Amino acid sequence: MLIERSKKIFNATGADKLIVTAPDLRFYLTGFASSDGLVLVDENGATFYTDARYLEAASAALSGTGIEVKEPPRAGYLSLVEGSGRVAAALSRITADEYIALSKKVVEVTDCTAAFTAEMGVKDDGELAAIKKACEIADKAFEDMLGAFKEGMTENDAAAELEYRMRKFGASGTSFETIMAFGEGSSVPHHETGFRTLRHGDIILMDFGCKWGGYCSDCTRTFLFGDDKKHEDFKKAYAKVLEAHMAAKEKICDGMTGAEADAIARNVLKEGGLDKYFTHSLGHGIGINIHEFPRLAPKSSDVLKNGMVFSDEPGVYFEGDFGIRIEDSVTLSDGKVVSLTNSDKKLIVL
Amino acid sequence: MLIERSKKIFNATGADKLIVTAPDLRFYLTGFASSDGLVLVDENGATFYTDARYLEAASAALSGTGIEVKEPPRAGYLSLVEGSGRVAAALSRITADEYIALSKKVVEVTDCTAAFTAEMGVKDDGELAAIKKACEIADKAFEDMLGAFKEGMTENDAAAELEYRMRKFGASGTSFETIMAFGEGSSVPHHETGFRTLRHGDIILMDFGCKWGGYCSDCTRTFLFGDDKKHEDFKKAYAKVLEAHMAAKEKICDGMTGAEADAIARNVLKEGGLDKYFTHSLGHGIGINIHEFPRLAPKSSDVLKNGMVFSDEPGVYFEGDFGIRIEDSVTLSDGKVVSLTNSDKKLIVL
Repeated sequence: MLIERSKKIFNATGADKLIVTAPDLRFYLTGFASSDGLVLVDENGATFYTDARYLEAASAALSGTGIEVKEPPRAGYLSLVEGSGRVAAALSRITADEYIALSKKVVEVTDCTAAFTAEMGVKDDGELAAIKKACEIADKAFEDMLGAFKEGMTENDAAAELEYRMRKFGASGTSFETIMAFGEGSSVPHHETGFRTLRHGDIILMDFGCKWGGYCSDCTRTFLFGDDKKHEDFKKAYAKVLEAHMAAKEKICDGMTGAEADAIARNVLKEGGLDKYFTHSLGHGIGINIHEFPRLAPKSSDVLKNGMVFSDEPGVYFEGDFGIRIEDSVTLSDGKVVSLTNSDKKLIVL
Repeated sequence: MLIERSKKIFNATGADKLIVTAPDLRFYLTGFASSDGLVLVDENGATFYTDARYLEAASAALSGTGIEVKEPPRAGYLSLVEGSGRVAAALSRITADEYIALSKKVVEVTDCTAAFTAEMGVKDDGELAAIKKACEIADKAFEDMLGAFKEGMTENDAAAELEYRMRKFGASGTSFETIMAFGEGSSVPHHETGFRTLRHGDIILMDFGCKWGGYCSDCTRTFLFGDDKKHEDFKKAYAKVLEAHMAAKEKICDGMTGAEADAIARNVLKEGGLDKYFTHSLGHGIGINIHEFPRLAPKSSDVLKNGMVFSDEPGVYFEGDFGIRIEDSVTLSDGKVVSLTNSDKKLIVL
């Protein structure tokens, strides 16, 4: 039941009232996407206040959930808590000026970020189903896309073709700006998709994802547009990155820290002398947001648990030359990693 | 010169140091898009700190601008200002917990939101050129899209076709989630694009935009997919909404408030007895963000100035029946409104 999310988080705060304004947290509590609104939770229940643009749709969507939908009070959202004792808000997700204004109206402001992180980090069946669907759409689009690469097309053209496929296959949009890198562009971990044209023998690195039902997918593949026989170094490094990716998948388990998970892949790359080219962390949580809890990184003490969804994305980058990243969205289920994106990772030569 | 932006805002704050962390504000100061980073400005100049993923690209992009690019300090971003006197930050764009942490490290934190709003509200030639390009792409995609509507296609299919065209014509992505509403869906101002199929005689309302060079466009058109001769009320209302849209364009001028601008369109609808169905405000600023300063709304005291870019988007909504919105992105130039989106607004019947 949707309203249980509000109740759980409210109870975890120990506050008199909980107010939630950030769009992603509001969506988590209501299942309704909007650019304006506030969810107020207290011992009497949960109410979603949202403006005229959303009232009709929100009322229909939340009918029967136990969450009331109301117009915002004329005196503004803060009037809802004026004079209250202890009010919980997500201090990581409200602005400094919202915090300063709120602090003047109530006796005490407490942070509920940890309660949201704990609840949102572990996905329920409905959330997992949405992420799986977003992953399946991304897989299908990738496979269909392989036949669409043509010599002379720009990175931007290729991104257009890929995004079109995700959209046609049911996605509501991309989960982040598609990275489509041809040739030397692949050596920039966050390459900005541009107008470089595709040439025979180019490395193609694409990092892409879509949204379905409000949830994200995230996947990266690196492959060759024809083999010009100048790719020995690339092929050796590819095999090692894939080994690191697979090692993480095999060894990550329930109860491990993000630092321990990151070390699995990093150690494999170290054996091959490639760890100094692995300039980012192994992964990040995926859900309503493309980057969320937990972090899989050298210093992360975040504990990985069953039901969490995150990326497994080792990469190596040789500045000005080429880069390789192999990424799947995965979940921990019964203590083991299950991959949610499943397109081919064996080196593809188009 | 890019660095002038940093200097102007720093000087306006009167602080010892200015720190900028929000992605849109960082992009404004550096012209470089990234998900991580901090811009530090003091009397010695401006430095952009960003992590390993972006270092290579940021260094290349900012070469010769006078803005230094550096790796983040090992002790974290806050170590850059530890022990400082007066530090300016955008309190509307940093989180409450960032504010609390910053406040503990320095003598005083001051807000630089107003300085950013004033500078970013008025676009320079480069910014205007980017917005114009984003608008031209949206126009071209719209016109090309008119031939692609087919009976039986879903809203999602149509959104896919439109977004594909914007991308192919050079956009880096959408500037917000496309609203594609068929039939009764048009009566919901922020309709969520779904799987309703297109039927002869349907009203189509599409609210769409794209990004180019980091800047947004925003446009809405409402039209008919065939005329089933049941649209007398729609046609009458359409003419009135268009009249309201055009009146705003003709009468809005440099120095007017957002409330005065909103009233122009609202009064035209009032004459036709339609003002109670105009449930949102007339418009919003457009730039790096799809919604920014100024607001054109009944209570807005924001003053409209030459060089600002905003939307002119009156609409009327008859719950469960149909809705109409006609929107252009416009700019104020030499005291008068110039439209930046320019596709046909005469009622189209496909």
